[in-house]
Amino acid sequence: MSEHIVKSYEQELSTLDSKISQMGGLAEQLVGEAFDSLASHNPTRAQATVASDATIDLLHRELEEQVIMMIARRQPLANDLRQVISVLKVAGELERVGDLAKNVAKRAQTVSGETHPKGLLTGLQHMTELASRQLKDVLDAFAARDAERAMVVWRKDENLDAVYNSVFRELLTYMMEDPRNIGLCSHLLFVAKNLERIGDHTTNIAETVNYMTRGTMPEGERPKSDITSSTLVSGPLR
Amino acid sequence: MSEHIVKSYEQELSTLDSKISQMGGLAEQLVGEAFDSLASHNPTRAQATVASDATIDLLHRELEEQVIMMIARRQPLANDLRQVISVLKVAGELERVGDLAKNVAKRAQTVSGETHPKGLLTGLQHMTELASRQLKDVLDAFAARDAERAMVVWRKDENLDAVYNSVFRELLTYMMEDPRNIGLCSHLLFVAKNLERIGDHTTNIAETVNYMTRGTMPEGERPKSDITSSTLVSGPLR
Repeated sequence: MSEHIVKSYEQELSTLDSKISQMGGLAEQLVGEAFDSLASHNPTRAQATVASDATIDLLHRELEEQVIMMIARRQPLANDLRQVISVLKVAGELERVGDLAKNVAKRAQTVSGETHPKGLLTGLQHMTELASRQLKDVLDAFAARDAERAMVVWRKDENLDAVYNSVFRELLTYMMEDPRNIGLCSHLLFVAKNLERIGDHTTNIAETVNYMTRGTMPEGERPKSDITSSTLVSGPLR
Repeated sequence: MSEHIVKSYEQELSTLDSKISQMGGLAEQLVGEAFDSLASHNPTRAQATVASDATIDLLHRELEEQVIMMIARRQPLANDLRQVISVLKVAGELERVGDLAKNVAKRAQTVSGETHPKGLLTGLQHMTELASRQLKDVLDAFAARDAERAMVVWRKDENLDAVYNSVFRELLTYMMEDPRNIGLCSHLLFVAKNLERIGDHTTNIAETVNYMTRGTMPEGERPKSDITSSTLVSGPLR
């Protein structure tokens, strides 16, 4: 392969990377805006967040088509193909993060007229901050093809799971204390779940970065601390 | 391209198809088993369902590697590549269906000791039946590369959404009637959500089948009837 061709193959790869960075930046922004529209009881802002997700979907389709054209034109060997297919997987994860942020924003619209005690959203805010930070970190690790950094993110998902567990219990308690909270809190349960799932997509990206650079999947099970699906809060507190 | 090569390219494609059919059959089975373990209060059965999901994950990784080797060896043109990448996407959707069934089974384990009135699971059973049928139908449409049939499935997801809406309201009402139901019903809310999401993955597969055969995505928005994220059941009934 002549140096010219090698160079422009790398250029094409870096075009894919900048599209990932664009999708990732937008996804990160949406996660923050979705929570802000919830906390500020602002349905207009929530609506704008819902609408923005279409941009991520569009970028995803563009990237997918770019990858196909690139493979067809370059006919890369298996190792290079693994890289390009990995980029496609990362894009797919980001597309889903956008969907989850959109769903949080939809629920923010729905509950915008509901009052709730200050402090009820503290746990969700903490989750949002952790999820955004994790997403940012894994995108940096992806851009740098830094498996070590990706694995730090992978291990840290445990923290997000731990906050999710406490938010889950807190919301259930709040529902048990006063049935009038059930409507609002059932939406907040799903908001929490969406944020926890954003964390899962982030760890999927981390695994892909690890695979891209080391050629293997992380060894052992990821430390998983989301125990809500096996937590039964059974009795009312009063 | 000689006829020999054409034939073995098609043979390779059909190997991918049979792996999809294997993954799909297993996913379908898991969805049914997850609900059965919930309805029969059988934690051992639920545990077995959780464990079976690993097989789908394994098949997914195998298929991914097969696709990469196949592209590297065959160096297909853009149109053929779109087909192969589409198969990869279908596999990704099935892998997530397996995850969702696994999550239903986990929750079945958790609530296996809880008693609840007969009839509470009727809606969830209906959702399970619809989701399984839709999944089966879309896999048939995929195997036959029948866009028309895939689009029938795509449009029918509305029915699953409609049942989800009523299950969502029913569970909330039940929680409001007696706070002792909150622990159990919060899990059942997520079970319902998981089944609704299985429907979404099914429609994603339908869109991919449509794209594979017609080269376009379905026109217009999918009739979307899941209105739970904008439904606020705000007051207790008593």
